[in-house]
Amino acid sequence: MSETVKTKGYAAKDASGKLSPWEFERRPVGDDDILIDIKFASICHSDIHQEKGHWGEQIYPQVPGHEIVGVVAAVGKNVTKFKVGDRAGVGCMVDSCLECDSCKAGEEHFCDHGKTVFTYGMPSETEPSGITQGGYSDKLVVRDHFAVHIPDNISFEEAAPLLCAGITTYSPLMRAQFKVGDKVGVAGIGGLGHLAVKIAVSKGAKVYAFTTSEDKVEDIKSWGVEEVIVVDDEFKNMQAYNKTLDYMISTIPYQFNVAAYVMCLKPGGTFTFVGMPEKSEITLNNLMLAFARVNFNSSLIGGIPETQEVVNYCADNGIRPTIEIINAEEINEAWEKVENKDARYRYVIDAATF
Amino acid sequence: MSETVKTKGYAAKDASGKLSPWEFERRPVGDDDILIDIKFASICHSDIHQEKGHWGEQIYPQVPGHEIVGVVAAVGKNVTKFKVGDRAGVGCMVDSCLECDSCKAGEEHFCDHGKTVFTYGMPSETEPSGITQGGYSDKLVVRDHFAVHIPDNISFEEAAPLLCAGITTYSPLMRAQFKVGDKVGVAGIGGLGHLAVKIAVSKGAKVYAFTTSEDKVEDIKSWGVEEVIVVDDEFKNMQAYNKTLDYMISTIPYQFNVAAYVMCLKPGGTFTFVGMPEKSEITLNNLMLAFARVNFNSSLIGGIPETQEVVNYCADNGIRPTIEIINAEEINEAWEKVENKDARYRYVIDAATF
Repeated sequence: MSETVKTKGYAAKDASGKLSPWEFERRPVGDDDILIDIKFASICHSDIHQEKGHWGEQIYPQVPGHEIVGVVAAVGKNVTKFKVGDRAGVGCMVDSCLECDSCKAGEEHFCDHGKTVFTYGMPSETEPSGITQGGYSDKLVVRDHFAVHIPDNISFEEAAPLLCAGITTYSPLMRAQFKVGDKVGVAGIGGLGHLAVKIAVSKGAKVYAFTTSEDKVEDIKSWGVEEVIVVDDEFKNMQAYNKTLDYMISTIPYQFNVAAYVMCLKPGGTFTFVGMPEKSEITLNNLMLAFARVNFNSSLIGGIPETQEVVNYCADNGIRPTIEIINAEEINEAWEKVENKDARYRYVIDAATF
Repeated sequence: MSETVKTKGYAAKDASGKLSPWEFERRPVGDDDILIDIKFASICHSDIHQEKGHWGEQIYPQVPGHEIVGVVAAVGKNVTKFKVGDRAGVGCMVDSCLECDSCKAGEEHFCDHGKTVFTYGMPSETEPSGITQGGYSDKLVVRDHFAVHIPDNISFEEAAPLLCAGITTYSPLMRAQFKVGDKVGVAGIGGLGHLAVKIAVSKGAKVYAFTTSEDKVEDIKSWGVEEVIVVDDEFKNMQAYNKTLDYMISTIPYQFNVAAYVMCLKPGGTFTFVGMPEKSEITLNNLMLAFARVNFNSSLIGGIPETQEVVNYCADNGIRPTIEIINAEEINEAWEKVENKDARYRYVIDAATF
């Protein structure tokens, strides 16, 4: 257990947004760690943003990927949460202090000591490459607490997107405490948005889906929404929804005309922004926000207990992401499709092809 | 009653930010109108923003001023709300449809038909100058509904600032529903901020005042706050207040480092922005907002019933703005002082000097 773990993956070597094969080593499996033989890892728009340096300079080579599922292949001596052969999943974070109030409350992503370690690209003294390396690879060593159980009633490939896209939409949707029959808007129907739609429908909301892609309409309707609005360039057809929604979540991963969407909310409604645009900046019109009388907030993934909750909820309630399985050599093409809004709706990489 | 009303005031003639004397005519007193002999009008930072064109191009000559008090000198035949000799005040708006749900609910500033008419600079078919003209003048004709009563237990000059600065801070503070003993932050201690402080203290909050002006500290302490924080250029001394406040209102009238202030709120807290920066734009860091877990909103003045409420509340509870009375010829100098943060804390123009 004291040896580093030879791993094959796909890494960004620079900010070009192109990945290529890379063999690297992960830290030895520590006393509190598990080793996961990765089965699938899915592609999140955030992977692209981060590797291209949109949120800040990166250290390369860097393996992206924070929607990871596989089988436990080894466990450290202190590990009781998993045993060899268990099905496990890992999302956006791999460590935190686990001692502060936030960590103890299951909000490890808000560690009071600032010790939350995200799954890839963060400086790490224990990783041989000097940074954490993500899930576009065949093996992962992770502290047991930060893996969740994948129930038997959901496939690996369908579980993978729940680890980020699922929890990132589930957490604010649950916090919104909408009631059955409330009108919930979802803006941006990609990897995150399509899961937001499915979760909100499952929880009893009347869902209004806003997309710029005409050819997604039939898919979206099949998921049980109340209406699909194909947003035109001038946002004219959105005006009919002025002050009609109780809650809205936007998964649009870039700067956009927030006002057009916010105006669809009833006064007193809440708008949650979970997309992460370049520089993490959003510009709001203060006067518009005052007229709309809407509360604006952002949300960041969710803690480990809630991640387990969303995986279980989706597994038990028939919520499945709409996915396309690809081989490792198709990753670059898939990234282009994600950027061009051509993903339908989540690419899942077969880790056997690394 | 069918004659236009000759009025003397100070007007902006261009976007220079300089005002000069101007004689103009107001519409005749209509059946639903009252004529007010203005006694005092106070200076709001918004006057400067608007006349300088910071929020969009303006029509000139334009008389600013939306904190107006005086004596009713004539009433139209339908008017029952006022009689000649009554003390009256006018704030930021002078008309709306009065028929829609919002108007009927006393939220005339959110008129569903978009017919809210603000006090100066808005196109008007009935005003001889073609636009509404504000309170830096000696007379005002206004629809009776949009004037409020000024009780006898407050002076005219101290009542004036309540018509905008008062209601603009009172309304979101009341909506925040903070409890006695809750920690309320006020950012920006100028005309609006100093009233926010006094109102919040009066309502039982522990108030934390954030200012960049060292020499305001003693004044602010005298108003009963818990603490005054003199914000340094790098916001370092604000870090001690990380996650401590239940609610915060910012009256800062320009773009600023929102993150530094938002981080002072407890997770789940609300931050209300009532300042109106240039272009009405505010740029937020989405990631910061996600980490802070704060609800962000803006607020726009308040309706007529609530404006009457704040005037009565302040009159009855000893809340008085801290003012300096000036003559008309001192307006330009006062504007410079407002922009340079030298106002202590509201300039009130003696309308007898127009």
